[in-house]
Amino acid sequence: MKDVISFEIEEKEKYIILSFYINENLTPSILKRIYPPKINTRKGVVLNGRGPIWLYGFLIHFYHSTPFLAIYDPRLGAVIIESHIPELKPGDILDIYLDKEG
Amino acid sequence: MKDVISFEIEEKEKYIILSFYINENLTPSILKRIYPPKINTRKGVVLNGRGPIWLYGFLIHFYHSTPFLAIYDPRLGAVIIESHIPELKPGDILDIYLDKEG
Repeated sequence: MKDVISFEIEEKEKYIILSFYINENLTPSILKRIYPPKINTRKGVVLNGRGPIWLYGFLIHFYHSTPFLAIYDPRLGAVIIESHIPELKPGDILDIYLDKEG
Repeated sequence: MKDVISFEIEEKEKYIILSFYINENLTPSILKRIYPPKINTRKGVVLNGRGPIWLYGFLIHFYHSTPFLAIYDPRLGAVIIESHIPELKPGDILDIYLDKEG
């Protein structure tokens, strides 16, 4: 059986791209039984995928202790939304392009 | 001059509904100069509004120390995404209806 949601990790030098893929219509009860992947918490996280805002909210909270967190927007790049390091501030953009949108 | 983004607070017994309204096309640099309203941090927060995921991400981080945080979805109600209180868990739904979507 395919998972309702699957995750894929791509580790770069300074951050980890976490892409998610949804395989059917999600309902919020999924949040009671998903376990996002453990990652190297010394790196920032870029979240990438098509999904409801509440799923993003859950993932943002899940990874909130990482050095920084960004949301990938195909039109913009990775938008920093929180950061615990001085080099990056909310509103900064990492100029990356992902050809495989989650 | 109208603000690029405006906020409206509605305080309920157990939570605060924070609605936002966007008055023009937003760019991520707005995150360097918005100051979401201070709220009663003894109550949960329900976020409501139409906007990019990175704006939600910023607000989710901003209010992450409140007792719980939910995202309003007009089709579902308020979906809990994080909670520090035992009565609510991620994936639970507060059955509320907002007639004025942000």
